[in-house]
Amino acid sequence: MTSLIRNAWYVAAWSTDIDDELRRFIILNEPVLLFRRSDGGVAALEDRCPHRLLPLSKGKRIGDAVQCGYHGLTFGADGICTRVPGQDKIPQSAFVTAYPIVEQHGIVWIWMGDPERADPARIFTLPQFTDPRWHAHHGDALHIESNYLNVAENLVDPAHVSFVHPTTLGNAASENVPVHVSTEGPAITAWRWIRDAEPIGFFKAFGDFTGNVDRWHYYHLYAPSIAVIDFGSADVADQIAEDDRDAGNRIFALHFMTPVTENYTIDRWMHLRNTAVETAEASEKIDAMFRIAFAEDKAILEAVHQEEQAPPKRRPIRIAIDRGPMVYRKRISEMVERERTDDASAETNGSFVYHD
Amino acid sequence: MTSLIRNAWYVAAWSTDIDDELRRFIILNEPVLLFRRSDGGVAALEDRCPHRLLPLSKGKRIGDAVQCGYHGLTFGADGICTRVPGQDKIPQSAFVTAYPIVEQHGIVWIWMGDPERADPARIFTLPQFTDPRWHAHHGDALHIESNYLNVAENLVDPAHVSFVHPTTLGNAASENVPVHVSTEGPAITAWRWIRDAEPIGFFKAFGDFTGNVDRWHYYHLYAPSIAVIDFGSADVADQIAEDDRDAGNRIFALHFMTPVTENYTIDRWMHLRNTAVETAEASEKIDAMFRIAFAEDKAILEAVHQEEQAPPKRRPIRIAIDRGPMVYRKRISEMVERERTDDASAETNGSFVYHD
Amino acid sequence: MTSLIRNAWYVAAWSTDIDDELRRFIILNEPVLLFRRSDGGVAALEDRCPHRLLPLSKGKRIGDAVQCGYHGLTFGADGICTRVPGQDKIPQSAFVTAYPIVEQHGIVWIWMGDPERADPARIFTLPQFTDPRWHAHHGDALHIESNYLNVAENLVDPAHVSFVHPTTLGNAASENVPVHVSTEGPAITAWRWIRDAEPIGFFKAFGDFTGNVDRWHYYHLYAPSIAVIDFGSADVADQIAEDDRDAGNRIFALHFMTPVTENYTIDRWMHLRNTAVETAEASEKIDAMFRIAFAEDKAILEAVHQEEQAPPKRRPIRIAIDRGPMVYRKRISEMVERERTDDASAETNGSFVYHD
Repeated sequence: MTSLIRNAWYVAAWSTDIDDELRRFIILNEPVLLFRRSDGGVAALEDRCPHRLLPLSKGKRIGDAVQCGYHGLTFGADGICTRVPGQDKIPQSAFVTAYPIVEQHGIVWIWMGDPERADPARIFTLPQFTDPRWHAHHGDALHIESNYLNVAENLVDPAHVSFVHPTTLGNAASENVPVHVSTEGPAITAWRWIRDAEPIGFFKAFGDFTGNVDRWHYYHLYAPSIAVIDFGSADVADQIAEDDRDAGNRIFALHFMTPVTENYTIDRWMHLRNTAVETAEASEKIDAMFRIAFAEDKAILEAVHQEEQAPPKRRPIRIAIDRGPMVYRKRISEMVERERTDDASAETNGSFVYHD
Repeated sequence: MTSLIRNAWYVAAWSTDIDDELRRFIILNEPVLLFRRSDGGVAALEDRCPHRLLPLSKGKRIGDAVQCGYHGLTFGADGICTRVPGQDKIPQSAFVTAYPIVEQHGIVWIWMGDPERADPARIFTLPQFTDPRWHAHHGDALHIESNYLNVAENLVDPAHVSFVHPTTLGNAASENVPVHVSTEGPAITAWRWIRDAEPIGFFKAFGDFTGNVDRWHYYHLYAPSIAVIDFGSADVADQIAEDDRDAGNRIFALHFMTPVTENYTIDRWMHLRNTAVETAEASEKIDAMFRIAFAEDKAILEAVHQEEQAPPKRRPIRIAIDRGPMVYRKRISEMVERERTDDASAETNGSFVYHD
Repeated sequence: MTSLIRNAWYVAAWSTDIDDELRRFIILNEPVLLFRRSDGGVAALEDRCPHRLLPLSKGKRIGDAVQCGYHGLTFGADGICTRVPGQDKIPQSAFVTAYPIVEQHGIVWIWMGDPERADPARIFTLPQFTDPRWHAHHGDALHIESNYLNVAENLVDPAHVSFVHPTTLGNAASENVPVHVSTEGPAITAWRWIRDAEPIGFFKAFGDFTGNVDRWHYYHLYAPSIAVIDFGSADVADQIAEDDRDAGNRIFALHFMTPVTENYTIDRWMHLRNTAVETAEASEKIDAMFRIAFAEDKAILEAVHQEEQAPPKRRPIRIAIDRGPMVYRKRISEMVERERTDDASAETNGSFVYHD
């Protein structure tokens, strides 16, 4: 059975990725053509001519319309066919799906499900996007040969950090610090504070810490596939309170996971920070550290995904640190079932505004 | 269900491709060994030893026989086993299929079906092959990762030319010129005349036209998979009649499509022309232009084939220009059904002599 | 149905292949982690953490234990979990399979089946391993994209030698010499003597023969997948008796075939010899000749395996020289059936001590 959720906003691309050119993407197993219209908005069309199935991305633009590269059928940015060479009448079935698109904070969001349920108010955002004390920096797209569930659950799993990212995001000091998990809000949240410990590699590079720090990791996972990692450090002497994290060096790492197929996921990552907000150099350095860490995740996740394809010898075990991932997978199962049965009474899937 | 037709003559190779060496081909999913016998004829054997299945092409020739490279079983050019090392008696089941072969006009034709129905009189030919006013030039073999039906129907489809080959075989002038289709003869024929128009790139290079031309495209498709494209141009001032095309610069482009598998086709192409018949340079230039056009077709056809592998969202639409392709697919369906039920009462499949 | 036999000793590696590093192998479709413990012995663990399935070979050693690279679960060399970070209690289901290992004569033997039946006394050996008049030399590992049955039956098949190895192990003189087959002992044995013939390439290089020789090939195949090839030559003048082969130049070529999957086999080969026992140069030269011959086998066996994947046109024929291979395949079928039904009454599979 599929694990893909259709009724949700997904990140199709960064805004800077989309221009006049016809570009093909695969999202939830469907080919999607994206391009920027002359009015500056982004058009998203099914990338498959309904006639002989050629991807429209192999055709060419005629103004804001797209002409198929095989027989010249032409479709407006709304998906409606406007020309069939060789005949005057245009059949009603000559159209391609046009997907709802919202562009916000430099991110192109797409809705692949029932268009009637596409509510822009449910698109993920953070108040810090518009707060001048914060800087938002769009990172990159990590391609991972894995089901998106593995990628997502890794982001509500602080326990892996000590073992997978010993040089960047974790170190041995955190191995045995217990993880708290809250499953009450729209997000599943796993977090821990590590008090009076050596700074992790990340903040050795960016903080000016001379001694030990108090540090935190809050992993918020929104089903189906958005993660917010709120992490930071403050000098032990500051005696920082748990709800006063803005007083420390604080970073939100955002992960927008878009399932390409059941076996391939693109994780588009970016961050917001309240430190070094004015310097582009800091963004580059932070990206560089993230790249190291995410390459470590990719190696693990692809190996796990590959091993999952083999016939199981026995049922995998679940342990204490799995509580977040287990709740996540249960939520996904419920979403899949709601979509399978078209249960309109239940709440729409989708994303939500972050709250501390 | 298969779309492959067995009872038909297919082009296995150009005559110049076959010499003393043992060469392996895959035709209709079957491995075939071709080599030239000492009498100059071409032998075609099932390329799989009936003992341990090693391709005979990995063995060696012993005169006109082939010795398997594993245990030395030896087969004559007629497929009969003549030696089993280690024993005197040769089992009756020790043979490989020998396929009927006819070599004609530099082309090696093979019959993969019921040998009783292999009638050489039904092999495709053109009177121009032996007319001294014409020059025949064997081109090349285009490998296409697509079902042969897509490749073939593209060759009874003049409408694609304006969009796929804008720089070589078509231009915008033809986009809206209606296509005539005749389905009465052995071939399905689609054609159009474009009067008083700019020459296409092809005849800009080869004609001496100073102004506009009258030009024609006749696409003849013989099921299962031979196409003849009769195209040419004449000066507008000549007022050329439709049935007097020899008075213009006229080219027959021939396409012999051989299904390798359901998903892979080799299109061997060549041409005959009534212009520049004495110069090898013209052949090279024409080949070069064809290569540009056929690479364009290949890109389209492979993208279409790939898209066809995805689960369909809805039924593809059919439009006016599809009449030729639709009749073609219907003929193929009937051929498949005739072969499935071994309906001997119906006419044999195969190819036919071209008539204007 | 599988052709893989679990209750047998297989060669996992040469002893020299295994050191402190964590190394992953696939044996009978199962991932196996091998490393050398601090006491010098070899540990073999299922290479898949029971928690999130990450290969343990992607983790790291903590003394003689292995720590998973994802969440730090730690397993002793006996497969028992000794640590689950984040909790005190270790669940009973937290373990990986530990496979019985025996190291003998520089070879690492592994038992993938029911551990209760793993009897070290049944591991293959030869008295010559410990005889000072003999030299044992470990060769290499030949990777073959073929089912192991094809690889194994090739080693009880002297008839292929004349055709596959004309320059190394065979020549035309042997093509029609009959093969004897004995199926009475634990091994299936096929052999032939070729009297008063030109030396084969192998002994042209290593013997000091000036004229013709008497030469022999004894192919012993132990199901499921060990082969001993006893071959050699003696001067015709010596009138060597069949049971006095030590008087000639004699070599035992050993082949230990380990099925990786149903479609991939590693053939680890080595030899023992009673000639030039003191010179490393001879070992290198012999290896070089074997490499030529085994590359010839690999080419044949991979082509056969590939051809076997195609749908058969008709049943393959069997001929006189197939007697050994046919008995071998029958034995394998019986072993498979015994394992399928867990027939404990029948004799255990496995390997045996060689006797002339």
